Amino acid sequence: MIKVAINGYGTIGKRVADAVAAQPDMEVIGVSKTSVSAEAYIAGKRGYPLYIADLAKKPEFEKAGIEVAGDVEAMVKGADIIIDATPGGVGAKNRPLYERLGKKAIYQGGEGHDVAGFSFNAHANYKEATGKQFARVVSCNTTGLVRLIHALDQAFGVERVRAVMIRRGADPGDVKRGPVDAIVLNPTTIPSHHGPDVLTVLPHINIVTLAMIVPTTFMHMHSIQMDLKRKTTRDEVMAVFEKHNRIGIVRKATGIKSNAQLREYTQDLGRPRTDLWENGIFEESVSVLDGKEFYCFQAIHQEADVVPENIDCIRAMMGTVKDPEESIRMTNKALDFVPIG
Amino acid sequence: MIKVAINGYGTIGKRVADAVAAQPDMEVIGVSKTSVSAEAYIAGKRGYPLYIADLAKKPEFEKAGIEVAGDVEAMVKGADIIIDATPGGVGAKNRPLYERLGKKAIYQGGEGHDVAGFSFNAHANYKEATGKQFARVVSCNTTGLVRLIHALDQAFGVERVRAVMIRRGADPGDVKRGPVDAIVLNPTTIPSHHGPDVLTVLPHINIVTLAMIVPTTFMHMHSIQMDLKRKTTRDEVMAVFEKHNRIGIVRKATGIKSNAQLREYTQDLGRPRTDLWENGIFEESVSVLDGKEFYCFQAIHQEADVVPENIDCIRAMMGTVKDPEESIRMTNKALDFVPIG
Amino acid sequence: MIKVAINGYGTIGKRVADAVAAQPDMEVIGVSKTSVSAEAYIAGKRGYPLYIADLAKKPEFEKAGIEVAGDVEAMVKGADIIIDATPGGVGAKNRPLYERLGKKAIYQGGEGHDVAGFSFNAHANYKEATGKQFARVVSCNTTGLVRLIHALDQAFGVERVRAVMIRRGADPGDVKRGPVDAIVLNPTTIPSHHGPDVLTVLPHINIVTLAMIVPTTFMHMHSIQMDLKRKTTRDEVMAVFEKHNRIGIVRKATGIKSNAQLREYTQDLGRPRTDLWENGIFEESVSVLDGKEFYCFQAIHQEADVVPENIDCIRAMMGTVKDPEESIRMTNKALDFVPIG
Amino acid sequence: MIKVAINGYGTIGKRVADAVAAQPDMEVIGVSKTSVSAEAYIAGKRGYPLYIADLAKKPEFEKAGIEVAGDVEAMVKGADIIIDATPGGVGAKNRPLYERLGKKAIYQGGEGHDVAGFSFNAHANYKEATGKQFARVVSCNTTGLVRLIHALDQAFGVERVRAVMIRRGADPGDVKRGPVDAIVLNPTTIPSHHGPDVLTVLPHINIVTLAMIVPTTFMHMHSIQMDLKRKTTRDEVMAVFEKHNRIGIVRKATGIKSNAQLREYTQDLGRPRTDLWENGIFEESVSVLDGKEFYCFQAIHQEADVVPENIDCIRAMMGTVKDPEESIRMTNKALDFVPIG
Repeated sequence: MIKVAINGYGTIGKRVADAVAAQPDMEVIGVSKTSVSAEAYIAGKRGYPLYIADLAKKPEFEKAGIEVAGDVEAMVKGADIIIDATPGGVGAKNRPLYERLGKKAIYQGGEGHDVAGFSFNAHANYKEATGKQFARVVSCNTTGLVRLIHALDQAFGVERVRAVMIRRGADPGDVKRGPVDAIVLNPTTIPSHHGPDVLTVLPHINIVTLAMIVPTTFMHMHSIQMDLKRKTTRDEVMAVFEKHNRIGIVRKATGIKSNAQLREYTQDLGRPRTDLWENGIFEESVSVLDGKEFYCFQAIHQEADVVPENIDCIRAMMGTVKDPEESIRMTNKALDFVPIG
Repeated sequence: MIKVAINGYGTIGKRVADAVAAQPDMEVIGVSKTSVSAEAYIAGKRGYPLYIADLAKKPEFEKAGIEVAGDVEAMVKGADIIIDATPGGVGAKNRPLYERLGKKAIYQGGEGHDVAGFSFNAHANYKEATGKQFARVVSCNTTGLVRLIHALDQAFGVERVRAVMIRRGADPGDVKRGPVDAIVLNPTTIPSHHGPDVLTVLPHINIVTLAMIVPTTFMHMHSIQMDLKRKTTRDEVMAVFEKHNRIGIVRKATGIKSNAQLREYTQDLGRPRTDLWENGIFEESVSVLDGKEFYCFQAIHQEADVVPENIDCIRAMMGTVKDPEESIRMTNKALDFVPIG
Repeated sequence: MIKVAINGYGTIGKRVADAVAAQPDMEVIGVSKTSVSAEAYIAGKRGYPLYIADLAKKPEFEKAGIEVAGDVEAMVKGADIIIDATPGGVGAKNRPLYERLGKKAIYQGGEGHDVAGFSFNAHANYKEATGKQFARVVSCNTTGLVRLIHALDQAFGVERVRAVMIRRGADPGDVKRGPVDAIVLNPTTIPSHHGPDVLTVLPHINIVTLAMIVPTTFMHMHSIQMDLKRKTTRDEVMAVFEKHNRIGIVRKATGIKSNAQLREYTQDLGRPRTDLWENGIFEESVSVLDGKEFYCFQAIHQEADVVPENIDCIRAMMGTVKDPEESIRMTNKALDFVPIG
Repeated sequence: MIKVAINGYGTIGKRVADAVAAQPDMEVIGVSKTSVSAEAYIAGKRGYPLYIADLAKKPEFEKAGIEVAGDVEAMVKGADIIIDATPGGVGAKNRPLYERLGKKAIYQGGEGHDVAGFSFNAHANYKEATGKQFARVVSCNTTGLVRLIHALDQAFGVERVRAVMIRRGADPGDVKRGPVDAIVLNPTTIPSHHGPDVLTVLPHINIVTLAMIVPTTFMHMHSIQMDLKRKTTRDEVMAVFEKHNRIGIVRKATGIKSNAQLREYTQDLGRPRTDLWENGIFEESVSVLDGKEFYCFQAIHQEADVVPENIDCIRAMMGTVKDPEESIRMTNKALDFVPIG
């Protein structure tokens, strides 16, 4: 059993913790939190030992009826590998601790590529992670782009990618961030930073990305166009998607035309926290014009799509499973990851 | 086993269906849908026989891979009682069918009191439902008001209620209704219709309600003030809430200050569809000024709080359980209804 | 003086009325409304004679203190040309009236091309409007696309256009339409209808458009990419924009990064109703990659950009001003249309 | 001519500047800004000398084509009185500067009462401002409450006020603040801070306030209930409102049912920046139950209602006009403040 610690039990951390706990070959030895909160209660209800950043706050937790197992350093010591899901930029500050204690760690996309020197995606570069001390699972948007681009690049070759990404303004539980009634260019310059971030995983891809932020809370929506190298048909493209185990098809017959309806659907399906772990590609939008110009819309759940990637990254770095497809299948099976459509 | 049919497998219907299926003394014999949709697929995945309004549409369903068990009339014939969760106003049109086939039916709050002549709330008037052919479970807002008012009226006597209700604009999966950036008076006159609707269950209460609609999708927020007949204290009021099995306390220590954070919490708790079946009363807001003036904020989940009421209403009308508290306990237990705080 | 009647004094109609009134060579002889409303009062305050669709409603208007000049037919009779700004689809129903009375009429983009058989944009095809009885000013989005594409096509030749359009959910004063928290594909298929609509004005252009709707009220945001025929530079492109009298530059130094901040700016500039009549191209976004691949973001004010086009269309159809540039200059001057940046 | 400087040319400052410039007895001698922005350009277009906090930034402004007149201290020296419209909390830090230079200053509601030791409302306590060096114009919400409560208190006596305030999440041009899809209790405790703030102007009033924040950008909406001391009728109350020169009636006949439609109306009326300077009381909502229980809804424009109060406060502090009604009339007339209904 791989002993996994989750440093930062928030939006991503709590999901990864549950995903780790569901795997047959790993266990959660602890999660961390900096202050008393709803999520600290949830850790207790799930039975995860709770470690805190500052032991001086232990009485506050205990007064609130929450048991504290120790401090973060103690948690790290007890782990084989740490999922660092602390807020963007904090991960970099945690690196010396992991180095001092000689522990492996996985960072999230809120950190830059340099924090680990290696950026991960299960389908694209699983084997390169073997033996690394540090890795970064790329952000939700980059993960969504990489899955799609890699799949089509393997099948047809990709000449150029143009992606326009409509980002949610705030996570559902975040009541401070906006915007309320605005479309914000993010940034006003072209390209956005997402294109270069794709290159940390797929360095040979030619990509231009543009991004905007809108007043929604759930899922980014990507409008994707690719010039393909080899002539193909819509049917061939659909066949690639149908057999991909991290790409889901939002079927025309469901009548789903938005991220909101897609969430209602994942909720009805009983997905934990309504999570869409896969890319949600809208069946009707998949188009191939003139044989070489591919288009589609895809929904990317900002809280969820990196969760299975973290699990695969653990196995890749620990070297316990050599074959990426085997790890992906194990992860999906343990999550009871049934296709959406 | 009580045979229950769900006419209208939408926002309320799909929740009641799952709640019925979870009870030890009842079963879902069918659900109905008018057209192919995501929810029609969900019915299939849940194993509920799907009946349709118009058999001429059967080929459409079958083309989409959805099995059709028959038409709505066939479903009604096979049931002991029907949960009518069709859109507001349609329930009234269905009444002749239920009368012709001699079936009991429960309407929702989208219908007026007259559709059934009897309006139901489990804590307030369970026993009056015995033997009735028709009943109406009052709307989400009225259910939330009745639970709270009835509890305080029993304990201290209620002289006058003043409630300001901030309503969500659209359900999460409804992408057509607004508003986008507006606070809409609903109505501009005072009082709103909610006060009179409370009187259908608690006719002796003196109540004035005001309502506004805002651009949110999840949970109404009520600001409640009551003049009490008997002097009391905050502690006494909290004691009433703590022991009430359909009132939940949103604890100060969780840091939850909004409906959005409360939803994140119910989601983390693993509640199906993130449902808040109980009134969510914010602990810090509970106040008693000058001994007789009560105040609080409560969150009311528009999709969920009527679900357990429908279950209790089935038992009350069928006469299988005489004691309201026994039915409420059975319902809550079957739902694995653990207190939120 | 050209006698202009505005049939439909709503979002577009009230703006066109004020623009007509500001011109030296035309006058508003009447505006129409179907029921008592805030806008009916505004017509009175502006001094526009108010005509109503149904004279039976005259007492309602008079009771509300609003004078009625007659019915719509009387208004049409007194006009040289009618601006039909009735809701989408109603314009087509009004055509027989205009035909019977032998009047010229200008439709809006809510109607299809066939309602007039001729679709208008001042820069692209002003002269073709001469002598026509009917014309359609294309929709806000199409107007914004045509201005930009036509300008670059004249300068460099346009090989292919790819546009992703993020549309506002509802107009600011519309409190019924949503969505509240969703990104809605509009449509889920590719391309959207906007591309074909551009062809009604610029039939030789090769264009693919995609559209989404988001919960905002003010201005669409376009992400535009064009393959150019002739190699060029960012400076050459900027020079085209700088001298175009219906394209405005949102300067980097203003710090404006969103439609909301742009509206604050047009409001501070004192523009009537905060109107952005021109395309609002974000200076920082203007990019030319590899010499031939153009990118930019532009904001399109859905309530305003067609207003000056209607004025020019009047002159073109009446034949009073032959030169498009002369009409455009007259219109802009009368509107006190000072560049935004 | 009273020489007025505006320290902080933002949301409030730019409106007060234009209002000062419109008065016959005062002039704008300068406005200040800390960095290059859209508003800095607007100051230039309006012809207001621009002063900056840090002269080291002068080259940045000049590079952007914006003339700099000097630093803030120079501006303060040249003024008789300063409108401090800097962000909340900064005003307190500016007080030593005003003291050192012996200048009068008016703070805004973002500062606490203690910053000036005197809180102002034109109708309630104009005369008390005479000769004061410092005053604070209370916040938009408090101004709206004070106007209404004071008017009814003068007419009928007010026993107790209960107000529920639905606040906008962010100003229209603020794209960072949320919430996106939440109703946030602000605070979760009862009462909110607004009640005590009313007491800084009307210390004898018995008031309980509750507040929530919702995802809208324009105008707070107040739900007001008052127990009156003297029995009255709706007609008597309406008569008080009709003759009040800072209370506007949103007439039933306009069909306006929301803040969004009210903004559309003030925009159509040609109000600068669509400003609603008065309380917007919804005619249909005005109710008197049982002779002594008053109810209404009122819209409060967060950017505008304090603007005329600042103007009156200038005259009151300078002692140039003794009679409050005379100042209010002068202010309103100069603003061309025509009643909305």
